[in-house]
Amino acid sequence: MTRTETATPAEVAGTPTLADVAALAGVSPATVSRVINGSARVSQRARKQVELAIDRLGYVRNRVASQGRSIALVICEDDGRVFTDDTYARLVGGVRRALGDERELVVMVVGRTAHWSTVPRYLRGGGADGVLLISAHDAPCGSLRQAGVPVLLCGRPLGLTPLPYVGVDDRGGARAAVDYLVRSGRRTIGTIAGPPDRATGIDRLDGYRAAMAEIGVATPGLIAYGDLRQASGEHAMNKLLDRRPDIDAVLAASDQMAVGALRALQRTGRRIPHDVAVVGFDDAPIAGRVRPRLTTVRRPLEELGARLARELLARIAGAPGRNVVLDTELIIRDSA
Amino acid sequence: MTRTETATPAEVAGTPTLADVAALAGVSPATVSRVINGSARVSQRARKQVELAIDRLGYVRNRVASQGRSIALVICEDDGRVFTDDTYARLVGGVRRALGDERELVVMVVGRTAHWSTVPRYLRGGGADGVLLISAHDAPCGSLRQAGVPVLLCGRPLGLTPLPYVGVDDRGGARAAVDYLVRSGRRTIGTIAGPPDRATGIDRLDGYRAAMAEIGVATPGLIAYGDLRQASGEHAMNKLLDRRPDIDAVLAASDQMAVGALRALQRTGRRIPHDVAVVGFDDAPIAGRVRPRLTTVRRPLEELGARLARELLARIAGAPGRNVVLDTELIIRDSA
Repeated sequence: MTRTETATPAEVAGTPTLADVAALAGVSPATVSRVINGSARVSQRARKQVELAIDRLGYVRNRVASQGRSIALVICEDDGRVFTDDTYARLVGGVRRALGDERELVVMVVGRTAHWSTVPRYLRGGGADGVLLISAHDAPCGSLRQAGVPVLLCGRPLGLTPLPYVGVDDRGGARAAVDYLVRSGRRTIGTIAGPPDRATGIDRLDGYRAAMAEIGVATPGLIAYGDLRQASGEHAMNKLLDRRPDIDAVLAASDQMAVGALRALQRTGRRIPHDVAVVGFDDAPIAGRVRPRLTTVRRPLEELGARLARELLARIAGAPGRNVVLDTELIIRDSA
Repeated sequence: MTRTETATPAEVAGTPTLADVAALAGVSPATVSRVINGSARVSQRARKQVELAIDRLGYVRNRVASQGRSIALVICEDDGRVFTDDTYARLVGGVRRALGDERELVVMVVGRTAHWSTVPRYLRGGGADGVLLISAHDAPCGSLRQAGVPVLLCGRPLGLTPLPYVGVDDRGGARAAVDYLVRSGRRTIGTIAGPPDRATGIDRLDGYRAAMAEIGVATPGLIAYGDLRQASGEHAMNKLLDRRPDIDAVLAASDQMAVGALRALQRTGRRIPHDVAVVGFDDAPIAGRVRPRLTTVRRPLEELGARLARELLARIAGAPGRNVVLDTELIIRDSA
């Protein structure tokens, strides 16, 4: 088969892809992409391997086919959060790296009060091949489905949304954290839960409850809520201390709230982890910076982004929708 | 005139706008918008005033006219920077607040290596009324002009781009900082300049040079460059100290580089500001957090965003393109 300037997508599908080059060269698609684009950020060795693989496979970057094919990543969250929260940098970075130059990525930040007629129009007009929907809290899923392209959610949706998602095992993460605390001899374990109207908040609390039920400890007085931010964690910790001064451990549903809890505990003269163990959630940058450094449940954000990208590409290529849940990891530092 | 469901934009122009309501009520358009949208984040008093103004003017929110009319704000910068740099939060916040509910705002983050066929297609398809272009460093201006809607740049463009811009007086800000240092008795004033391929880097250095020429101090050995980040500021400060151990002040072209300079100076045992005065640029959050707290040149980012929004709305309404330059402000804290 000879390739022409006007190759159809079907013809292109038969030719070696950037992913094939990456596999043969033993590097990531992003590295292949950097070599092709002439970036300086590639080692001599990787560059050689990629160039060899390109020669062997006869890979030709298909500008005609890839031109103008794009994925839209729609973030439905307030600007103040999106542009200062490291979460989005890691997630979007993961998506972009996994896409390499297979698809152009357009990130759209539309706020929480978006008029949901605007976004589908942009997507249709831009010819988006697929949509990743982040922090949507269910609102606009219906109107996006009308855009007529595959839509994939980041995180388990609440309600009856029939859209597939890639999420993180928040329930299992919380469970593992409580199990670890129990193994370290703690019994009176409290939690500072996140907003009860979001799946992450619900699932983390659920995991905590399940683990506490397993050791037969009743939780009245041991659960308080926060809005994921530091001040709310401090406030919630004070509440827990009022109700249960005998508390010997706390699991917070975000690292920011865990830092707030540290402050509240330190103010009462309690030693951490000696008197009270503290575990956070997310493994945000602050977890390693605060003293004592936070033990925390790590969400694999780059991997989540990469998996979202790969699942969406598979759906675009015709695979049926499915849900994917990624494992968390307990990062043991100094606070528990 | 009676208003119908299918009012044309021309008919709508004669009716009271949200801005009229805000002016009469003595509040911001964003506040009016919050009242109309039933947000809880409005004081009782403001709510009353807005409701009175709405009654008096007979304002009716024109959903038909506003539906689907949008402004696109296109950020051409790496994700890692966009999603962790407070600059974008403040700028986008300023734009969004100034637009109120006059126009839907769609923020598009496209990275620095965007395929510039994709973005204009999104804009055309989405029916954007106008485009704000941020951190573009000149690249895609040509293709955006083909989108056929008003385009406004954030910051003075380099080269011959014929697009109008709203910027900040970086030159005047640097000058004012050096003047202040001279008035405090400093003479051997160095600078850590930003990248020389960006207008902000060029203009700040230019302001520094002009102020030094005025006091007749030659600058050889007193100029070093950094990439705006902390590590580069530390590195550049060490270079300056090697060349001119008698240096008694330094102006850094970003707060991050100023913090790096503080570290380098403190490591040599120099007292700040007693031995060496340090002035930063931007008034980023870190300026108030670091010790000693940074004296810095404040860029009015929220105002810059608001002005971008208002100028673009004026252009959409038919006003000719013009350039606007906002003043900076010297914030005196402890480091100089």
